[in-house]
Amino acid sequence: MLITAQQASDELLAHDDILIISHMSPDGDTLGCAFALYHALFAVGKRVKIRCSDELPDRFSYLYTGYVDSEFEEQYVVSVDLAAIQLFGEKLNSYTSKVDLCIDHHPSNDLYAKKTYLNASAAAACELIYEVIVLMNITVTKQIADCIYTGIATDSGCFKYSNTSPNTHIVAAKLFECGADYEHINRSLFDTKSKMRVRVEQHVLSRMEFFCEDKIAMITINQQTVEDTQADETELDGLSGLPRMIEGVLVGITIREKTLNAYKVSLRTTAEVDASKVCQEFGGGGHKRAAGCLITEDYDTAKTMLVEVVKKHLYEFNK
Amino acid sequence: MLITAQQASDELLAHDDILIISHMSPDGDTLGCAFALYHALFAVGKRVKIRCSDELPDRFSYLYTGYVDSEFEEQYVVSVDLAAIQLFGEKLNSYTSKVDLCIDHHPSNDLYAKKTYLNASAAAACELIYEVIVLMNITVTKQIADCIYTGIATDSGCFKYSNTSPNTHIVAAKLFECGADYEHINRSLFDTKSKMRVRVEQHVLSRMEFFCEDKIAMITINQQTVEDTQADETELDGLSGLPRMIEGVLVGITIREKTLNAYKVSLRTTAEVDASKVCQEFGGGGHKRAAGCLITEDYDTAKTMLVEVVKKHLYEFNK
Repeated sequence: MLITAQQASDELLAHDDILIISHMSPDGDTLGCAFALYHALFAVGKRVKIRCSDELPDRFSYLYTGYVDSEFEEQYVVSVDLAAIQLFGEKLNSYTSKVDLCIDHHPSNDLYAKKTYLNASAAAACELIYEVIVLMNITVTKQIADCIYTGIATDSGCFKYSNTSPNTHIVAAKLFECGADYEHINRSLFDTKSKMRVRVEQHVLSRMEFFCEDKIAMITINQQTVEDTQADETELDGLSGLPRMIEGVLVGITIREKTLNAYKVSLRTTAEVDASKVCQEFGGGGHKRAAGCLITEDYDTAKTMLVEVVKKHLYEFNK
Repeated sequence: MLITAQQASDELLAHDDILIISHMSPDGDTLGCAFALYHALFAVGKRVKIRCSDELPDRFSYLYTGYVDSEFEEQYVVSVDLAAIQLFGEKLNSYTSKVDLCIDHHPSNDLYAKKTYLNASAAAACELIYEVIVLMNITVTKQIADCIYTGIATDSGCFKYSNTSPNTHIVAAKLFECGADYEHINRSLFDTKSKMRVRVEQHVLSRMEFFCEDKIAMITINQQTVEDTQADETELDGLSGLPRMIEGVLVGITIREKTLNAYKVSLRTTAEVDASKVCQEFGGGGHKRAAGCLITEDYDTAKTMLVEVVKKHLYEFNK
């Protein structure tokens, strides 16, 4: 059942002993929602706990300050930024049919919860959590503002992406007035790289290959990259945005060696090519602008196959 | 003489045949101001022209659409985002004592104009241009919104930097409502790099130096950089954010060789060090987190002097 923000805030105020669930592989939005809601409900005397199937990333550690975990039998279950039952994760699978309230902004939300406050025009679920907290008449403290700002900044690419709306900016302005430490948060989310990360980026960028009149750019992360840079797994993540960043590149490809003759491929595209269609040809999938697949061939074959299929999709677009 | 936004708007409405001056080495803010003001004043029937001592960068070409240049004898001179007479540039030096109105957000503005609307709490001078245009009762068209958004996004690092205020976000929300093409502008300002730019970044990053237990990072752009990368002037601009990006770095220094024994220094700092205070010791100035100066010494001396002064300011903070 779909409900309004006002109804969601009434629901929350009417219940106690609340469990908040974040989605697996947690990001800034789902965690920002969970901890903002925790602090708000705690402030009005409720018992609240947060659960997530996966470990919470260190880089969001500032969100966790002030959280006191407790064990109790929950009377009410809330999920935040959690679009589908597949995203509960292994540890929380038993809750998929027990969610009383879901607050979310994904248009694809499959309404698994008893009641859902869904607003797909919000850049981040945190925009909705802000709305609900204000409707509950709970003061937005600096701590709450930090949590909500984190979700908004994460999901809107710091107000860069097309999902950003006037309301996103208006909420941000209000969070500033509540003392959100946006400077520190932004710096840690967007403007900080380890020396090692810089080294890894340099390594792959200096070996970047171009195809099809520079419309396709490709980087490779393999055993050699690890040996040359001494980077660990986390430093090798999230590089797939690099090739498409180059001016004129329509398709960015990242090939990462998993085991001998098995390559994980990440595709990032612009409007001209549907990344998920390319990856489907290799048994993978994803979104229009970001998709992935696994190719079990030797490196040169994998590369040739990929470039050929991408070229085909580029030509089809230009027909 | 300092005046208010209302007085600035009255002044502009009361005059015609207006020359708008942007600062040398023009950036998104000074150009956004100039073109927004051009369109606004043109819309109410005035003759307006824009002049800048340096060539206008291609990457802001979308700002120039709809601008029709004309020659006439100016009756009123306005400078925008232009803090000091040294920033007029060679071609416009004759105007330094002839500015009727200056609209600026630099706290260091030396009040060279007859009248100055100065508001140092604005992230960008474009925030003030927005205010003045609204006070003139001129409709903010999509074209004007694009110009103003460009200035705000440029100077606030897309709402990331500490100069961003609630008002910055509120103005952004209003610009969205006026149709600003923020997705395209942000991608072109922040998410696209030329191959040459990537090469230049790699070149300076691989030679980055660290001091003071890696709290200070420094890059150098000199004749060697130009020879090694074959980059032109524009590709060498805007690199000053790179050193501070490294995890743990509190002060990022960019030293750029201008002529023999003359180095332009850009400082980017975190809360620990006031960049403008450091630069003032070398006769420069700017903002708390971003400032600049010129040092006329040989390279090694310039470097040593800089690091010493920055260290002093770091120690003072830690006292």
